[in-house]
Amino acid sequence: MEPALQAYLAEHRDRHLEEIKEFVRIPSISASTEHKPDMIRAAEWLAEALRKAGLEHVEVLSTAGHPVVYADWLHAPGQPTALIYGHYDVQPADPLDQWDTPPFEPVIRDGKLYGRGATDDKAQLYTHVKTVEAYLQTIGKLPVNVKFCIEGEEEIASPSLPAFLEQQAERLQADAIVISDGPMHDVGIPSICYGLRGLCGFQIDIQGPKNDLHSGLYGGGVANPATALVQLLSSMRSENGHIAIEGFYDGVNELSDTERTAFRELHFDDAKQANELAVPELTGEEGYSFLERTTARPTLEINGIYGGYQGEGLKPIVPSTASAKISCRLVDNQEPDQVMKRIEAHIEKYKPAGVTVKVQQTHRGKPFYISPEHPYIQAAARAYEDGFGKTPVYIRSGGSIPIVEVFSKVLGAPVVMMDFGLPGENMHGPNEHFHLENFDKGVATLCRYWQELHGIQNK
Amino acid sequence: MEPALQAYLAEHRDRHLEEIKEFVRIPSISASTEHKPDMIRAAEWLAEALRKAGLEHVEVLSTAGHPVVYADWLHAPGQPTALIYGHYDVQPADPLDQWDTPPFEPVIRDGKLYGRGATDDKAQLYTHVKTVEAYLQTIGKLPVNVKFCIEGEEEIASPSLPAFLEQQAERLQADAIVISDGPMHDVGIPSICYGLRGLCGFQIDIQGPKNDLHSGLYGGGVANPATALVQLLSSMRSENGHIAIEGFYDGVNELSDTERTAFRELHFDDAKQANELAVPELTGEEGYSFLERTTARPTLEINGIYGGYQGEGLKPIVPSTASAKISCRLVDNQEPDQVMKRIEAHIEKYKPAGVTVKVQQTHRGKPFYISPEHPYIQAAARAYEDGFGKTPVYIRSGGSIPIVEVFSKVLGAPVVMMDFGLPGENMHGPNEHFHLENFDKGVATLCRYWQELHGIQNK
Repeated sequence: MEPALQAYLAEHRDRHLEEIKEFVRIPSISASTEHKPDMIRAAEWLAEALRKAGLEHVEVLSTAGHPVVYADWLHAPGQPTALIYGHYDVQPADPLDQWDTPPFEPVIRDGKLYGRGATDDKAQLYTHVKTVEAYLQTIGKLPVNVKFCIEGEEEIASPSLPAFLEQQAERLQADAIVISDGPMHDVGIPSICYGLRGLCGFQIDIQGPKNDLHSGLYGGGVANPATALVQLLSSMRSENGHIAIEGFYDGVNELSDTERTAFRELHFDDAKQANELAVPELTGEEGYSFLERTTARPTLEINGIYGGYQGEGLKPIVPSTASAKISCRLVDNQEPDQVMKRIEAHIEKYKPAGVTVKVQQTHRGKPFYISPEHPYIQAAARAYEDGFGKTPVYIRSGGSIPIVEVFSKVLGAPVVMMDFGLPGENMHGPNEHFHLENFDKGVATLCRYWQELHGIQNK
Repeated sequence: MEPALQAYLAEHRDRHLEEIKEFVRIPSISASTEHKPDMIRAAEWLAEALRKAGLEHVEVLSTAGHPVVYADWLHAPGQPTALIYGHYDVQPADPLDQWDTPPFEPVIRDGKLYGRGATDDKAQLYTHVKTVEAYLQTIGKLPVNVKFCIEGEEEIASPSLPAFLEQQAERLQADAIVISDGPMHDVGIPSICYGLRGLCGFQIDIQGPKNDLHSGLYGGGVANPATALVQLLSSMRSENGHIAIEGFYDGVNELSDTERTAFRELHFDDAKQANELAVPELTGEEGYSFLERTTARPTLEINGIYGGYQGEGLKPIVPSTASAKISCRLVDNQEPDQVMKRIEAHIEKYKPAGVTVKVQQTHRGKPFYISPEHPYIQAAARAYEDGFGKTPVYIRSGGSIPIVEVFSKVLGAPVVMMDFGLPGENMHGPNEHFHLENFDKGVATLCRYWQELHGIQNK
């Protein structure tokens, strides 16, 4: 890294961390309508931070949902333009009782910043803001042009962003889209993610009797919605862990020998992972390894299930309703809407008697893939070598950033995912945190990345 | 009914109803520790009401749990002694948003008293208190001796009462135990219940990863506790509605032709019942009618199921835990502890890999049966004819009053169940209510019952 940049970042590090804490303090939970004012507050806070960093044309742009924060710096004529995407919204924080410290009162312990949104995506997003600041406050210019497009609906699957991108396609035009919103392969092992899983989220609501019934007087006489739900969900999975929905695997490519070899060469430690998660063993779809199952295979996961009495003691009822929230991760050429149709057909075929079943698709996102040989990806690899002192590994991620596929399609530019998080940082779980060491290395990597892109052959 | 009794009851009816409302106003929820003070308040209130009615030796007796209210009147030498059992505790009131008026602010609408505990068991129990009052305030004496034993733990399966009964066996000695704590067969059709189902309640807790995980990064790689629960629960039931647990039906007698004919002759209207409950159809164990399934067949019902995210929007996680509360209703010679062993063996055999499964029995109660030919039952039939102007039908109930079996065994006396509630009064559900017409008819029936017992051959 240029000595001037290095000196500046060292001098201002404490202030930068304080700023991240300020950002984390805003409970910008996009899923919850009661947090709408916090969403506005987070967007305004970020806009101000971008202004202070030296960015121009900073605007909080309204969408059909939560606003998008836009900013740019476009004074590198003839050089590539990078569009930096990130999100200022966070997941809900419950179960609150599992947090060691309150989710929205960030603290630094052992070099890690704890708080909801720390790694997903506030601190990661902030590496970009501070990289720009370091350049502009020292050298006075960036090696490339940059645009920021930071949304507030990533955690609810970006319902408003596709229309926004179409509308603003001209303003957002870029040669590459750069995103830092996920985990690296492991501690000290930077990685470049060249594939993401898609998403098909839905909710099943089963309605039984119009109200809860005494299980002594009615039990056995009328279909129990919780039992109906259990039967229906159970029918979706075979014993070997395959999804038992007809046509579910349409569009899924079998893994090639090359890919399976590459997975094996990552030498993933199953026992260590099981131990970290405190489970007796890692299990799942038969015939696939943990890494294959979590990144290259589609899944159907129950995210939440509920019905009837949950309180203390016993309440012997036949519940009136039972529900499940489910999300499928998709790969390769699976189409979310097509998958949803298959699921609906399955439910129609297997729905239990005596109850009413309602299914509603809540989320959709297509899978994404970019060749590891792309010049913008290769430039990123060189930047990681500088920032982390290590050659990155190439991986696929099991997560979904549905908008990545939309970006790639609407703006017609390659998407480069440069992640600075780590597995085990409890994204979406309690005690979410971010290793601050990777804030420093992330900024160093990005400083180098803009240099690597300087003069690169466009497209 | 004696004219003096009739005149007294008519004159004081408004006051009696006001007293029931006062009683219902006390939120005596035995399942909830935060309501412990209300339990004491309800016991004290009831003790005072018994005193005012003219009963003697009124005491609030402590147990290992909530107290028992005792009272007696023993001035009919040579006559039988009836022990009146009831309970002053009530079920939790949630879901609160389904109540038309608040559960603990009783109101009378269309001749029905609405409020949690109205029919189960506060107003039914109160028929006994007011019957005694009417006798003592007019004629000055009862035709028989009576003892009251009113507990506060019926809704949590009476954990402390068996020990209490053993301890107090001498004080509680009686020739018959009389209980009014259930529904009659239908509007205008009084019934005598000669069988109750037993109960085996348990909770299954499935522990997966130590905290909720991001379903993108871990989904498919690790066993999902909600999925594991669904698979496990699904294995307990076959497609035709039979319980698929080995040995579950041990001790269940096949219904005799006589019994099945008696069930048919009740001319139960399935379509009407389905319509009342707002379900498409009544379904359950194949080969049995609704009445058979709800009274003479054992069941396994999910009372509550929960795990993962239940809030607004999507939270794409692999939940850390999932749980179910389950209660089995038992019949004939099924033994709750034996059934529990069968369930544990089933769970051991079918428990899914990759998670930890904990099972805990929470409730047990044996089934109960008394011959409809017993003289105390026949006396009750004559009393109903007087109180309701109709010959009662003989039925079995699907509910469980586990303590009935204990009473019958510890005190060695017949148990006579004289119910004044109605099906559809939402026992345990929202908008619980009690038809006040049956308060009047219930008191009239009891006034006659004590006369019928006067001079009856003991045992």
